[in-house]
This record gives sequence, C-alpha cells and structure tokens, in this order.
Amino acid sequence: MVYERHLKEFLDASNITVGDIIRLEKEDISYTGMLLEKPDYSNENTIIIKMDSGYNVGVDINGAKVEKIEEHNKPHIELDPVDRQLSDEKDNVTILSTGGTVASVIDYKTGAVHPAFTADDLLRATPELVDYANINAKAIFNILSENMTPQLWMQTAEEVYNEINDGADGVVIAHGTDTMHYTASALSFMLDTPVPVVITGAQRSSDRPSSDAFMNLTSSIVASKSDIAEVLICMHSTEDDTYCSLNRGNRARKMHTSRRDTFKSINMDPIAYVENNDVKINDPQVKYNKRGELPLMLNNNLADKVALVKMYPGVTDELINMYVDKGYDGIVLEGTGLGHCPDNMFNAITRAKDENIPVVITSQCLYGRTNLNVYSSGRRLLQENVIPVGDMIPETAYTKLLWAAGQSDNIDEIRSIMQTNLKGEMDKTLSQQYFIKQ
Amino acid sequence: MVYERHLKEFLDASNITVGDIIRLEKEDISYTGMLLEKPDYSNENTIIIKMDSGYNVGVDINGAKVEKIEEHNKPHIELDPVDRQLSDEKDNVTILSTGGTVASVIDYKTGAVHPAFTADDLLRATPELVDYANINAKAIFNILSENMTPQLWMQTAEEVYNEINDGADGVVIAHGTDTMHYTASALSFMLDTPVPVVITGAQRSSDRPSSDAFMNLTSSIVASKSDIAEVLICMHSTEDDTYCSLNRGNRARKMHTSRRDTFKSINMDPIAYVENNDVKINDPQVKYNKRGELPLMLNNNLADKVALVKMYPGVTDELINMYVDKGYDGIVLEGTGLGHCPDNMFNAITRAKDENIPVVITSQCLYGRTNLNVYSSGRRLLQENVIPVGDMIPETAYTKLLWAAGQSDNIDEIRSIMQTNLKGEMDKTLSQQYFIKQ
Repeated sequence: MVYERHLKEFLDASNITVGDIIRLEKEDISYTGMLLEKPDYSNENTIIIKMDSGYNVGVDINGAKVEKIEEHNKPHIELDPVDRQLSDEKDNVTILSTGGTVASVIDYKTGAVHPAFTADDLLRATPELVDYANINAKAIFNILSENMTPQLWMQTAEEVYNEINDGADGVVIAHGTDTMHYTASALSFMLDTPVPVVITGAQRSSDRPSSDAFMNLTSSIVASKSDIAEVLICMHSTEDDTYCSLNRGNRARKMHTSRRDTFKSINMDPIAYVENNDVKINDPQVKYNKRGELPLMLNNNLADKVALVKMYPGVTDELINMYVDKGYDGIVLEGTGLGHCPDNMFNAITRAKDENIPVVITSQCLYGRTNLNVYSSGRRLLQENVIPVGDMIPETAYTKLLWAAGQSDNIDEIRSIMQTNLKGEMDKTLSQQYFIKQ
Repeated sequence: MVYERHLKEFLDASNITVGDIIRLEKEDISYTGMLLEKPDYSNENTIIIKMDSGYNVGVDINGAKVEKIEEHNKPHIELDPVDRQLSDEKDNVTILSTGGTVASVIDYKTGAVHPAFTADDLLRATPELVDYANINAKAIFNILSENMTPQLWMQTAEEVYNEINDGADGVVIAHGTDTMHYTASALSFMLDTPVPVVITGAQRSSDRPSSDAFMNLTSSIVASKSDIAEVLICMHSTEDDTYCSLNRGNRARKMHTSRRDTFKSINMDPIAYVENNDVKINDPQVKYNKRGELPLMLNNNLADKVALVKMYPGVTDELINMYVDKGYDGIVLEGTGLGHCPDNMFNAITRAKDENIPVVITSQCLYGRTNLNVYSSGRRLLQENVIPVGDMIPETAYTKLLWAAGQSDNIDEIRSIMQTNLKGEMDKTLSQQYFIKQ
C-alpha cells in the first residue's frame, strides 16, 4: 500500500521515497533505517522504518523531523533470471509463504522492499537451495500470523493440496511463529497427505546476524524430502544453530516469546531431528505416517464459530451463555487440573447441552491428560455430556472441534471424532515422562 | 450435608450409614469402599464411595444394588486429646486448610469421614509434626480448589493476617492444586508478610501409598520456619520423594494434570528447595524478602470484575465488547507471541480505552516476556494504551489486576501498579535461560 497523502507530503518535503535510508527524530528519540512501504495494518499517521536491529518500527510523524541519509540504490527491476538447475534427479519442493519474520528472507539479500516470494527471489537470497531440490515458491498471503484465521487455514490447505496434486514431493510453509501451531494443527485435520508438509518460521528476521531463518528453511526442505508424511513444525531445537526439531504439527506449542527453540512438543518428544542435512528419527517406537501411505485428500470444511475459553477463579458463566445465545458450533474449555470447571459454570454448560452445542474440555496445565473420573466435579461434567479429550492440548482441541463440527451436526458424531485419534493428536497411554525438567 | 430422603431410604434398607464399607453393584460394575458423606456439589441421585484406590467415586443409585460389607467401627468421639508438646523452644506454625486432596490427610489415619482439620486431628494423623513446631490448625473452607473465588482469597488473606498478628511464626495453607497458583499469587499482593506463608497440596490423596501429602506438608512446615518471608508454593520438585521446591507464589504454575512435580516456576528457578528438613537457597543472587523485613500489612481490597481472555485465530471482539458493556474493572489478554492480538480486536480494545477500562496484555507462550516494540501490531496496542507486563504470567497478571483495580480507579495509577515489580512477580532482565529442556 502507499502512504496517505499527508504522509507522502511529509516524506516528499525531504525528497524521500520507499527504500531510502532515513533518520527520523521525535522528542528525544532518533530512528535510523530504511523507509518501508506502508503495510495494510499501520496507523494513518505512522511511517514504518526497518531499523539496523532488523526490527520494523512504526513512528507517528506528529512532531517528528525527518532527513534522508542515503538514496535507495538497489532497484529490483533489472535482475536476471536465476539458473534454478532443475533436474529430474532432484525432488520437487514447493515453498508457500504466508508472511511473518521468515518471509523477510528475500528482503535483505536482494534489497527488495516488498516481501516478494517468487522462486527466483528466494534463490537469489539463498542460492544454495538449488542443491537441495527443484524449488518452486509462491506467496499465498503476506500477513502477521496473529491475523491468520480459520478461513485462511482452509485456503492454505487447498494450496497445499494443489501443490501435492501437481507433483510436489514435499511442501514447506513459511509462517509467522505466533500462531504457527494453530495452523499446523488445523492442516493436520484438513489434509491426508502422502508427502511431508513442513511449517517453519523464524524468531529473528533474516537480516539479523543471529537469524534462525536460513537453518529453519533449509532443515524444512530436508524434512520435506523425508519419509515422514505428516504436517510437521520444523524449528530450532536449541538456542544454538545445532539442529532442528520435527514436531508433530498438532502436538507442538510456541512456549517462549523470543527464544529460537520456542516450539516444544507437549506430551511427546519431537518425531525426528534434522542435523547436518539429515533426518534422524528420535524413537523408532513412535508411529508416523510414511511417505505414500495415505492417499492425498482434502477435507477443509471448518465450522463457522467455535470458541476457546479459559477457566479461572472468578470466571462467570456470561461467556458460555453468550456463545450459546449466538449459536456457536462448539466451545472448548481450558479447564483447571484434570479438566475441571467452577460450579458456577454448570448452568451454562447445561444450556449448551440442551442446545446440542458440543462442549470439549482440556487442561490449562498443558502437560498430562484430562481425567473426569477422579473427582466428583469431573463426573458431573461427564453427566453434562462434556467431552474430555485426554492429552490433546487446548489449541489442538480448538482446531479439531472446528473441523469436527465442519464434518457433522450430530453431537454424538462430533464426540466420536473428538475422542478418536486421527492424526497422532492424542494418545491413550499416560505419557507421564514427557514433562518439563527444571 | 446429608443424603436426600430417597438416597437415605435406599441406604437404610441395607442398614448402611456413612462410614460403612459397602459394595454397590450396577450393571457390570461393582464398587467397594467407604460410604462418604454427601458433598454439597453431588448429584441428587448419587452416593459417594471412597474406593481402595483412594479416589472418591459418585454412583447414581438408579438400578444399583447395595450391601454392607463392614460396619463403620471408628467413632470419632472418644479420642483423647493429643499431647501437642507445646514448648517455647519451638516455632508457632498455623496450618489453614481450604480443602482439596491434601486435606484428606486426616481422613485416612483417624478414620474420620469428615475432613475435620483441628490441630488434634492433624497431629493424630501425623504425630511427628509435634517435633517441628507448636502446631495450630484450622479449617477455613472445605472446597475443591476450582471453586475458589476472589472473595475467598480476600477471606484467606484476612485469616493469614490474623494468625500472624496473633503470633504465628509461619503459616501453612493446605489447598487444592488446581488453582493453588492463582491463590498464591493473589495473596502475594494482598499481604505484606514478615513471616513465610507457604501454600501446599497433594496430587495423590493421603490414603494412597504414593501420596505426596505428608512430604509436602512437613516440607511446608520447615519452609514456614525459614527466613523467606514471602508467599511460597511448596510442592514436590521431582516425581520421587526426594525434595520439594519453594516456588515464588506469583511465579509458579500447575503445569501437569497429575504429576507430583506439577508446579514449576516460570521465568525463574525456585527460590529454594527443602531437602532433609533443611531449606537450601538455590541462587544467592536471587532477592527475596527476609523474615521481619516487611511489617505485617493486609490490603485485601480486590476489584469486582476482571476478565482473563485468550487470543486465538478466529477469536472475535464479542468477548471484549461484552466485558466493556458489563462495566468490567479490567481485562487481561493472553496474547500470542510477544503479546499480539488479531487486528479484528482493535475496535473493542479502543472501546475499552474510551471507557477507561484497563487492558493488560500477557503472552500465552508463558515463558519469555511481552515486547510490543518489535512489530507494528504491538506498537498499535501501545497506542491503544494496552498495558504490557513483561515476564508476568497471565494468571499473575489477572490476580494483580484484580488487586490494582481494587486500589485505584485511575487508569494511570493502575498502569503504574501493573508495571511496577511489587512482590517479585516481574523482572526487567531477559530471563532467556529459564526455559523448558526437551
């Protein structure tokens, strides 16, 4: 998008255009960096500057002074096509970009200000990728991942389906980290895939020396050629650039705001690791879908309205009542402990039962599994037809209920779907050993 | 409570009273155990049996047959007073019981069916406690911890205050584990305490061989005599009975549904450990309030209505709008990543701002800290006066906002309280090292 007229006038006065290095002074603070194009979400008084730190900063121009430091000197128009070294010997890997920090991989090396994501752009930025596979690349969205929605998940699933249908031996999805695990989980239910679908991202943008973008991307390409035909999250295993984890997409969670090893599998270990361009299975006992095992199938019908609601002392039933009133298709509760709710929630839960709205219960502990048979309050939830889902994490229960309620209106069928392990998202054994070490 | 008439008739027909060992057969299942008193939350057709496993089971009597196996033979009325061996040489420790699995400590050893909690009962169950301190004990509630409320927190704070005011050298609170960390966090803000206030519980009830109740209780008494004058959570550090952790009350979280080492400090290590009746400080660099450092003060005014709301893809602004419409005193958001919300939340957030309702943002990652300066969406939240609270966990931000909004109606004062470290609940340094090892 282009800056609004008054922003443009402000910039024109100093002969500044997008791509220039500028210094902007406001009150006591001075910002130096490259003027970026206006993103569609920015405030109307704000210009966006890419700082040397790699972070993008939006600054309100009210009371600000600006000067041009350096002309934008890397026009993007004259680049030659890249020799993609296509070969029948190599696997065909498609990279779909949805936005987020990892998508800026192109940005820095080519100097392109637009986060374009053609195969040429990608290979200019990381020419070594031609050694790994015949790379096809496509930008399907360019959004911050907090703006992903179930609608966009459905679209993503269709894009992945089309790529595999067209012959991709593996698909890599570049995605913001904030909601990567929700997307991965949703895709795992919407797609039966005969090839790996690997979601990756970055906690540091690729123009910072400490970026994890390149290793995550190359590891994901290696994983996409592997035998693990599941939806996987591929991110750093440790803070160092030593190896990446391949987490089952519906079992992982972003557990740290900023660390590079932020994604952790909950209630299981990662299925495999990628180290030195090699995929190493972690535990041969753990089952996963092998390449070619499942025929390709797309079933991306999601329900319209499912809510994810946390229980806490002082919570009222206003929430659940509102969702019942608004005709929601389902409600996932993050209960306490083994899956408990305060007594004052029961009237609303009974109302949901009477309206045939499925209510699923998970645990906000994250680790462990629901068990409604231990305490009487749990048994009371069972009497109200609340659906416990074992060791499924709340985020996965949410995406699965969206999917289950998209498959059927019948509450018994929905219950059966929710309590059946479809894509490794739940396990009947206790998994007591998979826990935080402190 | 007593069983309803038809339940009583059903039991009377077999000459059964509370405390008897009974066998109840229903369909293909047979339940053998002690008939318990009717809890106030049970279904009107259900009787409660304490099984040999230690679990309480509620069984609907419809279609059930019952027989008496063994008469209740331990009347609770003739017990002699216990020699409490009071001595000026020993510290005075008060144990307040709120209910939960740990409170059943009495149950088993004395055979008392009522979870009484007098000092005599407690010392009959665990006579070794007289060696540790002059024990005073008092049941203030008997509820499952999912039914704790901010109102009950206020009452608990007052009880603790009174005990310390009356000369207790330390206070131990027996509490259900589900919401223990919410209570601990709330108490940390409501009380300035010159002595340790130690909250403890059990993941296995005390009549099971694997119970953690006794070790948690004795370790808590040891901790209550220590120099760490803070609100602490004392629970098992490991699955084995090796030692207990003393977690800062507003920094810990129940992280596993069933493991004994379920409580983990987030973004810091435990302050200390209790091993062999000895308190060992973990890191001498970590500051804590020393015994006698703070004069005793009670400030237990909490706001009426604060909400804790999780962000996720597909979340709508209906929630925040509802809380604004209902005149809530504040809203805590569990944002994604560094503390982000989807764009479609902003209208409602602006409405909250216009209504002077404080909106606090935390991260559902749990580990790490909010940072609204990295991405433009975060900066937009700052423009809407949203209050980021660094490395404070969502549960603590919730209890603290209840407290802050109970201190002031002025949004700037509330912001200042929320962003000031009062009881070790937040830290300005990055804490990158405190993270899950997988």
